[in-house]
Amino acid sequence: MTNDQMSLFDAIYNCRAMRKLDTRDVPEADLKQLIDAANQAPSGSNMQNGRWIVVRDAAVKQKLADLNRGGVEAYIGPQAERPGSLPHQSEEKRKRMLNSVIWQMEHMHEIPALIIACMEYGQKVDATVAQRGGGSLWPGIQNLLLAARAMGLGAAPTTLALNDQDKVREALNMPDTMAALCLIPVGYPLGKFGPVTRKPVEDIMRFDQWS
Amino acid sequence: MTNDQMSLFDAIYNCRAMRKLDTRDVPEADLKQLIDAANQAPSGSNMQNGRWIVVRDAAVKQKLADLNRGGVEAYIGPQAERPGSLPHQSEEKRKRMLNSVIWQMEHMHEIPALIIACMEYGQKVDATVAQRGGGSLWPGIQNLLLAARAMGLGAAPTTLALNDQDKVREALNMPDTMAALCLIPVGYPLGKFGPVTRKPVEDIMRFDQWS
Repeated sequence: MTNDQMSLFDAIYNCRAMRKLDTRDVPEADLKQLIDAANQAPSGSNMQNGRWIVVRDAAVKQKLADLNRGGVEAYIGPQAERPGSLPHQSEEKRKRMLNSVIWQMEHMHEIPALIIACMEYGQKVDATVAQRGGGSLWPGIQNLLLAARAMGLGAAPTTLALNDQDKVREALNMPDTMAALCLIPVGYPLGKFGPVTRKPVEDIMRFDQWS
Repeated sequence: MTNDQMSLFDAIYNCRAMRKLDTRDVPEADLKQLIDAANQAPSGSNMQNGRWIVVRDAAVKQKLADLNRGGVEAYIGPQAERPGSLPHQSEEKRKRMLNSVIWQMEHMHEIPALIIACMEYGQKVDATVAQRGGGSLWPGIQNLLLAARAMGLGAAPTTLALNDQDKVREALNMPDTMAALCLIPVGYPLGKFGPVTRKPVEDIMRFDQWS
């Protein structure tokens, strides 16, 4: 089921990261619907300081794709040398994830919409400020990912393009009071939707105290 | 509609922060279902390093309630003096939010379950480490809040109890490689569910560049 009536739990349990996306345009109304869903999430003290930029312009997408390439190449190097480094993930699965990150790197400029999740800090963003506020933005990012899933759109969050905030600000013409915390390429999926696989809940929860 | 079949969009648009909660117990299976939903969210590099503690024990709840009281009193002081400080929020609405934060402070030890969202960093948490990783935990917190809404449970995220991580670690018997990033009291709501109100989407989104 891929429509506005998908149940919450179906969306949550089938919201796999979708990186291989078609070049086909996504209707503007659907992109606005994603941001509107993101905008409903809570923020610290109800500050509502999340900001969202939906990039469709070819030149801006190319700049972000170039920034992403630098970030991916720096990330893939060490990762490729330790494909079995996460004990809960098989080597084959890890390789498949890295392959799709590389596919995304090669095709990012062709993906119909790159959504940038930003924060408005109300003051110049320095190294201290930039560490704050994620708790006021990532709930909205999750709303956006779930909404995309229910609407039959593929999406996956990444931060690899955003290491150099000065360059990101220049590409997006953002003031120095804003920072970009996440990039979400969005489009119609080339692959199939499916369930996510996670560690068993017994491994990650306890009652009353951790140990 | 308050059941497992609630649509994703109904959950997203009606997930108001619910702070006034009944003392009535929440079935253990429902609490596990919340954590299982949280556990489906994405994490950076699929590290799956989110951890969840569901506190029902009276003594542990009291310790967290005491820590929360200190945080709330430090927060409410400056807030109460500027009830109109957020231009998008009416003074009356702001006061209502602060009143419910105070209600929560007075009753936290009686709320049936206090869920603590934690990160496992795999190394001793110092000031630098503690700033990282929120993007791998807050998507799960949002899943949990949406799942609670669909199940007819009230919830609201807060961080005010968690300023002193050493004391939190002691209360929860957590190793020094873990940190607690969010506390979510969960129970049956005393108030009514309803739609959230947010800034209009035009205020928080742009196409292609911010300005």
